[in-house]
Amino acid sequence: MTNKKEIIAAIIIIGNEVLSGRTKDLNTSTLAQWLNSLGINVQEVRVIPDIEKTIIDNVNELRNKFNYVFTTGGIGPTHDDITASSISKAFNLEYGFHKEAFSILEKYYDPGEFNEGRQKMAKMPTTANLILNPTSGAPGFYVENVFCLPGVPSILKSMIGGLNNVLVGGDPILSKTINLRTYESEIAKSLTEVQNSNNDVEIGSYPFFRAGKLGVSIVLRSLDKKKIDKCNEQILEFINKKNIEIVELD
Amino acid sequence: MTNKKEIIAAIIIIGNEVLSGRTKDLNTSTLAQWLNSLGINVQEVRVIPDIEKTIIDNVNELRNKFNYVFTTGGIGPTHDDITASSISKAFNLEYGFHKEAFSILEKYYDPGEFNEGRQKMAKMPTTANLILNPTSGAPGFYVENVFCLPGVPSILKSMIGGLNNVLVGGDPILSKTINLRTYESEIAKSLTEVQNSNNDVEIGSYPFFRAGKLGVSIVLRSLDKKKIDKCNEQILEFINKKNIEIVELD
Repeated sequence: MTNKKEIIAAIIIIGNEVLSGRTKDLNTSTLAQWLNSLGINVQEVRVIPDIEKTIIDNVNELRNKFNYVFTTGGIGPTHDDITASSISKAFNLEYGFHKEAFSILEKYYDPGEFNEGRQKMAKMPTTANLILNPTSGAPGFYVENVFCLPGVPSILKSMIGGLNNVLVGGDPILSKTINLRTYESEIAKSLTEVQNSNNDVEIGSYPFFRAGKLGVSIVLRSLDKKKIDKCNEQILEFINKKNIEIVELD
Repeated sequence: MTNKKEIIAAIIIIGNEVLSGRTKDLNTSTLAQWLNSLGINVQEVRVIPDIEKTIIDNVNELRNKFNYVFTTGGIGPTHDDITASSISKAFNLEYGFHKEAFSILEKYYDPGEFNEGRQKMAKMPTTANLILNPTSGAPGFYVENVFCLPGVPSILKSMIGGLNNVLVGGDPILSKTINLRTYESEIAKSLTEVQNSNNDVEIGSYPFFRAGKLGVSIVLRSLDKKKIDKCNEQILEFINKKNIEIVELD
């Protein structure tokens, strides 16, 4: 996709639990769909372990390559939550109690309940900007173009809306999906021809299995609705000729 | 974890469909659990787009850093399947019809059905080793320490067993999970103390929500069962003192 205003992002999933296979990452999908809606294109995702040097190196590499970097995980109260201190080091900033975060958490918990573990969640780069958490109090934060969110999917989901006015997106990325009852090999050649004559549309082809039946989803992505429509017409033309059935998936 | 025989792996998920948020990656979890069982530790996962240069750069970077690299996706018959040609370039090997793969596919399809699209799936580095596919015919392949598997999770799952005797693992990584009805902040301090006196055990703490109730899973990972047991005892001791309930999750 050629896009003069293309804004690109990377996601860093910080968590041994994903690398061990214990937990499936759901946050990439949530973040990518939300970012797409703002005209921000996710171009790389990395899953890395809870190791300080690894976090620092990856954050520093990716924040220079991408307009935005989003991290998930590692901002809770336990010993394995080292994202906030690592980000402080990556940016060479003081790590300590963030006044506003401390005050939010102090109010959030009942008197006497704001214990040492919970206080740790107020520790971060002291000059960071907060990302408010409507679900469970403890805020995320951002420094320059690096946004640090929690790993629990439902909490992350509840927080990202608060960033809609902070992020500056490009043109929104439009997409159209056509689901076909066919095999990829049946349409490969025609699809290549369509791709070759539509360079500004990214055409993806993905086999699916539903209710015991095979099919192929064709996904068209572009910044320009007219280009998607033109591409769509050319595809409808060849699937008509080949007598391929279009199916609706929920 | 200190481990003289530690064998480490990286996974490269090749696919715009994961980066766009359309598809959730399930293959990391499958591969990581399987590799753990062989004593191979996954230490990095990258999700990257279907762009030749990006694939080549990532494969070449990671194959030098890790004992093994596994790629998923991009080995089908359509124009967006560029893994095999990119791997050929990464290794400077001839890309063309692989004789054995061609012969497997020729036999797999009915006469007259082995069309151009399907023939493409026999194209790869001509000297690659094959990874047989008991589900849908088209083989994966490997060159040196880089193993290329399909993106469809059920097909990938059916193929990995064939590599059990090809991969050389280290000591198997053992793990134990304790699920507690508590908050992370309640146990954070005690858990830190246990971690500090058990450096050879990786202790992870993960909040969970089940049936509307909060809890915390503590995951102990080590190469040494005795060390896990010792750590487990220390944790049971403090949760007993704190009167925290252990719960069984399915």
